[in-house]
Amino acid sequence: MKTISIRENVLAENDQIASKLRERFCRNKIFTVNIISSPGSGKTTLLEKTIIALKDDLDIQIIVGDVKTENDAGRLKKAGGKAVQIQTSGACHLDARMIQKILNVMEFNGPGLLIIENVGNLVCPASYDLGEDVKVVILSAPEGDEKPLKYPAVFHRAGLLIITKTDMLELCNFDSQAAYRNAAQINPSIKCIKLSAKTGEGMQAWFDWLKDNVAKKISS
Amino acid sequence: MKTISIRENVLAENDQIASKLRERFCRNKIFTVNIISSPGSGKTTLLEKTIIALKDDLDIQIIVGDVKTENDAGRLKKAGGKAVQIQTSGACHLDARMIQKILNVMEFNGPGLLIIENVGNLVCPASYDLGEDVKVVILSAPEGDEKPLKYPAVFHRAGLLIITKTDMLELCNFDSQAAYRNAAQINPSIKCIKLSAKTGEGMQAWFDWLKDNVAKKISS
Repeated sequence: MKTISIRENVLAENDQIASKLRERFCRNKIFTVNIISSPGSGKTTLLEKTIIALKDDLDIQIIVGDVKTENDAGRLKKAGGKAVQIQTSGACHLDARMIQKILNVMEFNGPGLLIIENVGNLVCPASYDLGEDVKVVILSAPEGDEKPLKYPAVFHRAGLLIITKTDMLELCNFDSQAAYRNAAQINPSIKCIKLSAKTGEGMQAWFDWLKDNVAKKISS
Repeated sequence: MKTISIRENVLAENDQIASKLRERFCRNKIFTVNIISSPGSGKTTLLEKTIIALKDDLDIQIIVGDVKTENDAGRLKKAGGKAVQIQTSGACHLDARMIQKILNVMEFNGPGLLIIENVGNLVCPASYDLGEDVKVVILSAPEGDEKPLKYPAVFHRAGLLIITKTDMLELCNFDSQAAYRNAAQINPSIKCIKLSAKTGEGMQAWFDWLKDNVAKKISS
């Protein structure tokens, strides 16, 4: 019981900071997505391609969370992106305070797009609001189409499911319709985009989704 | 600071229960492995094949942890195994108390092999001792060979690294030697087995590793 109430306090404190971040993003017309997935689902590769495709149209900033290493921010900078790395030193998720701290040293005042690439973990990051407009959950073909049922919290809270590595669907015996059905069973309003960052299939739908949402944010 | 000390208390309490479990496994000559990996790395498929190969030689019991669903224990029972499911109701890892509780209702007195399939999560389960003889970390080819550097805690504490889905190495541009080097940089004494549960390649090394360790435990 003690553990639970402490956890509730931690989450309540996180939510307060997240609310302030949300107000700030709204004021500055920054559309913010919080990307959550297992390790190795292809988050960073997707973001490399996203930067290359959209950097001339949108002002994009990326915050990357990892338990250790700065590899991912390095990869994104090489792709021409503005990226900063948070090393969580063991923590299994990003929290709102980490985002608040790093925002204070970043020069990003909007309007534009802020993408937060969370720590690779399909469980814990789901509980921590980062002030984002929408959580995006990524599920890659090799992980299996039943995962929404096994890890429901993140699918419940996400606005968009991206199925990645669609070039491997057949090899992995991954049924995209079943994956979507399983996700929609948890969250009937979840949207779904299927893509392969490797072949480029489906990438345009993701770019359009981002551009539409940034445009809406700016005109709001 | 308060959060940290609470976490330390939780872990200290967990370690006390884990010590009791370890004594019990030792007394009953049960070799116990705690398998940790990302979601979708192929844990359950590996265990299905393991049950089929070894059930006539060894007394095997499996405890499966999942946030939600009993699918995995169902799959393992279908393969002819004795399996029980723990649904963690949101928790991102198994802890020693969960193992203690379920052991009290299982009829498994050894000697033999207890395999604990942890919740799919490469971060949090690493911190929770379950009284096991050895932690086994699984890394699948689609996840990428740099992951030991990004998620060091579990690689630091594991005795064995299993690289799975080796039939997809080339397709995923996964360098097994780099993966092993990265793991050994964190933990120089870690052993490594490469296998594909799909093609059968390398499976015998895993079976032999289990049989040798059970034999050692029984004769100890």
